[in-house]
Amino acid sequence: MEREAAELFEEFKELTASEFFRRNKQMLGFSGKIRSLTMVFHELITNSLDAAEEAGIRPEITIDLKRVGKDHYILKHSDNGPGIPEAFITKVYCTMFAGSKFRNIQSRGQQGLGCSGCVLLSQMTTGKPAKVISGYHEGEKLKGMEMTFKMDVKKNQGLILSQEPVDVKSSGVSIELHFKDVSYSLSEQGAFEYIRRTVIANPHAKIRFRDPTGHKYIFDRATDIIPPLPKEVLPHPRGVTADDLIFMAKHTDKRRFRSLLTTSLSRMSTKRVNEIQKSTGIDLDKRPKDMKWEEAERIVDLFSRMDFMAPPTSGLIPIGHDQIEKGMREILTPEFVATNTRNPKTYRGGVAFIVEAGITYGGESGRIVGDQKRAEIMRFANRVPLTFDQGSCAITEALKSIDWKRYGIRDLDNAPITVFVNLVSTNVPYLSTGKQSVAPEAEILHEVRQATMKIARSLQKYLRAKKAAKEEELRSKIFESLVPVVIREAALLAETDVPEYDAVLAKVTRRAKFEGIQLNSEVENE
Amino acid sequence: MEREAAELFEEFKELTASEFFRRNKQMLGFSGKIRSLTMVFHELITNSLDAAEEAGIRPEITIDLKRVGKDHYILKHSDNGPGIPEAFITKVYCTMFAGSKFRNIQSRGQQGLGCSGCVLLSQMTTGKPAKVISGYHEGEKLKGMEMTFKMDVKKNQGLILSQEPVDVKSSGVSIELHFKDVSYSLSEQGAFEYIRRTVIANPHAKIRFRDPTGHKYIFDRATDIIPPLPKEVLPHPRGVTADDLIFMAKHTDKRRFRSLLTTSLSRMSTKRVNEIQKSTGIDLDKRPKDMKWEEAERIVDLFSRMDFMAPPTSGLIPIGHDQIEKGMREILTPEFVATNTRNPKTYRGGVAFIVEAGITYGGESGRIVGDQKRAEIMRFANRVPLTFDQGSCAITEALKSIDWKRYGIRDLDNAPITVFVNLVSTNVPYLSTGKQSVAPEAEILHEVRQATMKIARSLQKYLRAKKAAKEEELRSKIFESLVPVVIREAALLAETDVPEYDAVLAKVTRRAKFEGIQLNSEVENE
Repeated sequence: MEREAAELFEEFKELTASEFFRRNKQMLGFSGKIRSLTMVFHELITNSLDAAEEAGIRPEITIDLKRVGKDHYILKHSDNGPGIPEAFITKVYCTMFAGSKFRNIQSRGQQGLGCSGCVLLSQMTTGKPAKVISGYHEGEKLKGMEMTFKMDVKKNQGLILSQEPVDVKSSGVSIELHFKDVSYSLSEQGAFEYIRRTVIANPHAKIRFRDPTGHKYIFDRATDIIPPLPKEVLPHPRGVTADDLIFMAKHTDKRRFRSLLTTSLSRMSTKRVNEIQKSTGIDLDKRPKDMKWEEAERIVDLFSRMDFMAPPTSGLIPIGHDQIEKGMREILTPEFVATNTRNPKTYRGGVAFIVEAGITYGGESGRIVGDQKRAEIMRFANRVPLTFDQGSCAITEALKSIDWKRYGIRDLDNAPITVFVNLVSTNVPYLSTGKQSVAPEAEILHEVRQATMKIARSLQKYLRAKKAAKEEELRSKIFESLVPVVIREAALLAETDVPEYDAVLAKVTRRAKFEGIQLNSEVENE
Repeated sequence: MEREAAELFEEFKELTASEFFRRNKQMLGFSGKIRSLTMVFHELITNSLDAAEEAGIRPEITIDLKRVGKDHYILKHSDNGPGIPEAFITKVYCTMFAGSKFRNIQSRGQQGLGCSGCVLLSQMTTGKPAKVISGYHEGEKLKGMEMTFKMDVKKNQGLILSQEPVDVKSSGVSIELHFKDVSYSLSEQGAFEYIRRTVIANPHAKIRFRDPTGHKYIFDRATDIIPPLPKEVLPHPRGVTADDLIFMAKHTDKRRFRSLLTTSLSRMSTKRVNEIQKSTGIDLDKRPKDMKWEEAERIVDLFSRMDFMAPPTSGLIPIGHDQIEKGMREILTPEFVATNTRNPKTYRGGVAFIVEAGITYGGESGRIVGDQKRAEIMRFANRVPLTFDQGSCAITEALKSIDWKRYGIRDLDNAPITVFVNLVSTNVPYLSTGKQSVAPEAEILHEVRQATMKIARSLQKYLRAKKAAKEEELRSKIFESLVPVVIREAALLAETDVPEYDAVLAKVTRRAKFEGIQLNSEVENE
């Protein structure tokens, strides 16, 4: 009983991106109650931070999570960013694969899926519309717009239910979403820990959070410095493929391939272009659309053999070793901190990245499991906490590959330390749609190891010095208690008065006391 | 220097699905040279098997992989399926999120991303068009069409370069694609192993493969039985959400909600619908579009409390314990096999699934690492090998949680065994877009454990019996060599002839010889 093709293709259809993700919400990271809520926090916080920074505003976020039933919450999330113009509100929240971040720029979000994913999840679990108030400047005027809308999944666009101008006091977006089948948790993968880690990696941000019990947390700024705005950088010749060149050529408005090269790639001077023309024999004065694949391939092949300056790093803004220290001190109140920001490197030949790392000991460092302290590994990409898929992440792999015994730590799992690693790049090589783990590129593994081993050495020095100082202190104590006895007895024997010895004793023993050791914040780079 | 919203939204744009995945090809599983090629094999083989089976044809696939340069290959893949009608050829290969498999049916592919992903990767790495020859029946006539095309990424559709009718001898699709930056490997995650595992789980399929060295492999059928065609089953009431009901109501052509329920859900009789009306007080004669979210929620809530028959399992077609045994014997030539197909169960309340498992010992079982044999874990979902993301997969998790020592296996990693697990479901809960690991649903974990422990017990019995038999054989051997001496010496002492003792001795020792133990293929279920 064979069936023919036409019959089998009767049911052929095309889905919109929204329909696709409605059927595959786990691909947006929405799987499991705790993880789903953490992903919502992640998407909204990420967008607020990006928007504020892009507009040159010190980010301030207020989150209110109310529990209205079992696994049922109402989330209000507000920021002080530049707001969203009326025409873009439903596009941002209801159209998947839409966004303003598809550029070669270091930003937290990149995929045009985050906000619309949250609205989709809300709608799928509660059927409730989203409510947004956007305040934004239009020239001198401050406009305010309140909107309620649903997502039309079949059309991948918004369906506005109500819309009216409102008075706002400042720019910013406020969104209210209902969720069911999600769960607020204090665990390592829960929403609270997500906020805590965000604050550590973003000491310039202020976050107010009211949790479902009504408790208010205020995570204040540890610094007033706004990180400089990352610049959009042109791709480095070593980072482009033949397909990229053809794609650029197809969609450019330049009239010659020569000018496409100099305006679309970094480190590409007229002199360089002339060299390319000479070396490949390809006429670069031709129209971009006439560029053939084989020619593009020959150019890319030549790129790999030419000497270029490293990619411009103006596009990369690390947190900075001092800011990481501030963030970790504020939240972890440790007795020891060491941090380290490495110099920019590249992976895959032309994608620039920076690794920075921090390590703390004591205070709130580590995490408590049962009645034991375990090591806590905090992974970040462009300041965004990565909370899931730890096992497959290059950062975890690099940390586990370090021989911690050499640094006086018997095993990483059971040490009362917190290790912080942030990967900064215009193009973080995520392993999955959920953006929760980094691909194991050899150069990234190397840099994470180097950054961490350096601060591990500092920790080792600190721990050694602390141990030595403790022993010294013990000796001093013995000294302090014995010397007076000896002096008194000697005076008695000599039948003289007991002399004034306090000052002298203090002078002698003070040297041996542990006064803290200046090993913090290793900053040199090799 | 604050910037206002309008300026920030100047660069707002919408991407097509193809553009999105061009920027994020790792989300299609295309990361790393070996993995990328394996994913291509996976997508093409999966589609060929599905198409042939749906059409009631015994699948036969011919693959020819030619190496034309470093990391540069030409792949020809042909099948004997029903073919693709002319009008759908570029839709299948160039439009993402398009397909005929968006139904509640057990099939290997489900997402409308596979084939178009392969074309995208080919185009991105070589700029070459795809060439397809499709043979398909139109009524009595056998038509043939040859087409070359590229993918227009900005439009998410095909761009036909040439097209002409050709003579074909039978139905089927043949595709030729060029790839660079991919690599053929014999490793566990390579393309060859992918084919080998596919054949084990699909003993009714025939695959011919010519590898880049020119060596021809023919994996012949181990069985002539075509698996029955899985039926499309209506979703079970326990498996639907309020959002599903509202979505159905919005897009139905039924005029009353009552008839929507009986025709869209399984186990939903008129009697059941009346009970629902009575219990919830909702008027089910109303138009589907008038159904409110709260009402849908109350109905779903009632579903969770009503008694329903389990989901129909006509939609689930396991490989079957005997077919798994055939597949494993054919490829692994083991000394021992045990297999087990469990009864259907459900997860998330209403999604039916079946777990089946097999274990082999000896022969080609296990994999060789260095000079040691290690255990080999073969994971499958709907007969499709899962080769990546092993660490995060529910199947691996379940297998690792088994106390293997109880079954006479000191540790799983170093045992010379192969463990086979296949998860059958209309709705496999994949963890990522790459479809390489299964979400750890409690019911799935439980079933994998149960299925595996049962066959592990059989293996244990076999190993024990083998050991006992070996000892017995040793004793027999001693017996055989000593008895004649005793008899001869006794005859000498008694001054009689040596009697004829061969037959008697054989009778005594034969019993103790190891003749193989009938423990294979445990099939009972609890």
